[in-house]
Amino acid sequence: MTTPEMQFERALHEWPRLDTEERLAAFRSLPLERAEELLDCMNAVDQADLLLTMRKPERRAWLRYLDPDDLADVLQEVPGEDCEVLLDLLDERTRNEVRALMAYAEDDAGGLMSPRFARVRAQMTADEAIRYLRAQSQRRIPLEFLYVLDSDQKLLGEVGLDRLFSARPDEKVADLMDPDIVTAPEDMDQEEVGALFSRYDLTVMPVVDSQGRMKGLITVDDVMDVLQEEATEDAQKYGGMEALDEPYLRTGILDLIKKRVGWLTLLLMAQMLTAWAMAHYEDELARALVLAVFVPLIISSGGNSGSQASTLVIRAMAMGEVRLRDWPWVLYRELSSGLILGGILGVVGFGRIVLWEYFFHAYGTHYMALAGTVALSLLGVVVLGCVAGSMLPFILRFLKFDPASASAPFVATLVDVSGLIVYFTVASILLTGSLL
Amino acid sequence: MTTPEMQFERALHEWPRLDTEERLAAFRSLPLERAEELLDCMNAVDQADLLLTMRKPERRAWLRYLDPDDLADVLQEVPGEDCEVLLDLLDERTRNEVRALMAYAEDDAGGLMSPRFARVRAQMTADEAIRYLRAQSQRRIPLEFLYVLDSDQKLLGEVGLDRLFSARPDEKVADLMDPDIVTAPEDMDQEEVGALFSRYDLTVMPVVDSQGRMKGLITVDDVMDVLQEEATEDAQKYGGMEALDEPYLRTGILDLIKKRVGWLTLLLMAQMLTAWAMAHYEDELARALVLAVFVPLIISSGGNSGSQASTLVIRAMAMGEVRLRDWPWVLYRELSSGLILGGILGVVGFGRIVLWEYFFHAYGTHYMALAGTVALSLLGVVVLGCVAGSMLPFILRFLKFDPASASAPFVATLVDVSGLIVYFTVASILLTGSLL
Repeated sequence: MTTPEMQFERALHEWPRLDTEERLAAFRSLPLERAEELLDCMNAVDQADLLLTMRKPERRAWLRYLDPDDLADVLQEVPGEDCEVLLDLLDERTRNEVRALMAYAEDDAGGLMSPRFARVRAQMTADEAIRYLRAQSQRRIPLEFLYVLDSDQKLLGEVGLDRLFSARPDEKVADLMDPDIVTAPEDMDQEEVGALFSRYDLTVMPVVDSQGRMKGLITVDDVMDVLQEEATEDAQKYGGMEALDEPYLRTGILDLIKKRVGWLTLLLMAQMLTAWAMAHYEDELARALVLAVFVPLIISSGGNSGSQASTLVIRAMAMGEVRLRDWPWVLYRELSSGLILGGILGVVGFGRIVLWEYFFHAYGTHYMALAGTVALSLLGVVVLGCVAGSMLPFILRFLKFDPASASAPFVATLVDVSGLIVYFTVASILLTGSLL
Repeated sequence: MTTPEMQFERALHEWPRLDTEERLAAFRSLPLERAEELLDCMNAVDQADLLLTMRKPERRAWLRYLDPDDLADVLQEVPGEDCEVLLDLLDERTRNEVRALMAYAEDDAGGLMSPRFARVRAQMTADEAIRYLRAQSQRRIPLEFLYVLDSDQKLLGEVGLDRLFSARPDEKVADLMDPDIVTAPEDMDQEEVGALFSRYDLTVMPVVDSQGRMKGLITVDDVMDVLQEEATEDAQKYGGMEALDEPYLRTGILDLIKKRVGWLTLLLMAQMLTAWAMAHYEDELARALVLAVFVPLIISSGGNSGSQASTLVIRAMAMGEVRLRDWPWVLYRELSSGLILGGILGVVGFGRIVLWEYFFHAYGTHYMALAGTVALSLLGVVVLGCVAGSMLPFILRFLKFDPASASAPFVATLVDVSGLIVYFTVASILLTGSLL
């Protein structure tokens, strides 16, 4: 037996792999409420595809189901002539609202907001305001807060519906309202909007123009999507690639390659510096080939500690815990951590070589000097990794790049090159006269 | 001139570095509304510290400002005897609510919910329901949805206040309500709760016990914090360490080291396999030292492509886009991407060696064979990286570990060891008779 819930789950999961006709068939097979839910879960591109596959009466019905802000997102995904066809199916008021919203960039506050919100006047009493809202009310309008506007649409304050409900019936809205509210300018970037929502634990935020007129309302569900998107973009950048525009499984293989090949090639070029460094020390390597044996181990320990440090700093920056001016404090913390972590790894590395010599006689008479070289180099590269990994995000942010681009591979490559220099310098100091 | 806004920003930012007395002074210096805001922004540990530093009357006032769910979080951070002292300052109703909430684990649905929500009866008319709510209403209770309970507190359905407002006054709540709502069982893990909120774009979700009785309401602002926390934990695990319990700047250096040293040592141990592999190929290295020169470049290209693949899959899993059973599809995508990406890097590597030979005569007569070895090895390690990086999260999830532990350093280490074997195998095939 297939329940509507199972049908819904299956449609949602198989969506990326269905072609347009199959999608429409799956969509139509759902009961009305589930179909609404599925449409709400889709991104704007898929919503647009689905609507364009439908015939006119069905399309009109579903267009009317969508809120103006979602409609604007859908229409921005549709080529010009189709866009006009779809706009013509809307009633005049919605059409005007949608056209106004389409003027905003998709990732601005204006592009996130809905133009529908509950407004009241300051002179009304609590009782009048409630009766006014009931007379005016339509479905799907957020009622948690009511916005108090003057005759020029300027935002004077907000009043929670709970406040209005618990007030004496004759109290004035002007006395109940809170004039001191967090608002977003129309052109604020969505990432900043998201940061304001988390910072002040908001569920809704009004959008105002430069004259303080209220243009619309952003609700937290739109912002959750933004925060998730930003977290995904950051994670992908941190993995050493450009952020994808669409979910992984929906991104074509060629697109996927395009987003990956740039950084991969750039990092390969940078890694060629390691070949140069290794060639530079070829004499030392020829005399003591055993040095080559520990190269991967040493450079990757630097990369690993650098990856830890950069991930800590990038995430703390994204959460607003660490700012640009905090760099000296972070440097101090990472330097101390690096010294201790590097010391521990050095001891482990030292022990490993001594043990191997004891059991397998692998390294000859100068094994203590070799163990010392590996241990000191481990200490050096771990400190290097912690410092480079923690400071690179600051440098990127200072240069107005995204700190999340201080990716694990980027930091590792940086530390690989400098780590080799540390290693061979330590070796030439400790081993000259014995192995070298 | 210092505005309250600037004072607030400064207090918020300097908070981690202030001691308890300084915190109290900073808190008291703020105007009431800013102080409320600051308290809302703090985590439970800091709220508890601050409250315990205050004298009794001040403490009582601030305890009463907090909602029951926040109070429960605060009291869970406080030692037993202090906890009773604080509970005694509450009015009886709140005290009972808080005690009930404290019985839940902090990261269960029950630990996230507030016991206060708006309830109505199915038999009421729209008009009666609104009048009932107004008569009952108190501040700080979410009114977006009203919950329809029977006499046993069983949840029958929900009705949006917008629906109630736009209904005819004599319509029955039973006819207006939606019986089909997403609820969380009391003991659902907060990560799952967060996933439900994003999936269905919810702003509130009722919590029910095993008999279907409504126990409380989770609001989206609590869930945003959960989602952010989870994203931070995932990022830290992905950076190759254990997740921190507190924000980076608030974590002591010793704690920081404890969270980092485990993975770092483990990875160092694993990297010792590279020393073993290198030692195994010492004969080849002795005959053709030039092979050592390209070791860092080749293994790190594998690590970089692996880091890209694992970040894509881990994030897609966290967003619910990729499930366990999707592994064959992901494998196919990564295998194809790996072949093309590896091919491109191979061509770049080949060109680099040929160019260097042309300009610097760096590699002798057998430079074409060497270039071929490096190019083929690059192709091999990139494919290896893409496959290992994308499949490791599936294996971890299958074994009930967190896929986010397939960190960039973990994948890189895995690929380092196997990449060396690929490199020396290709070399022994292509170079025997010339360099070897």
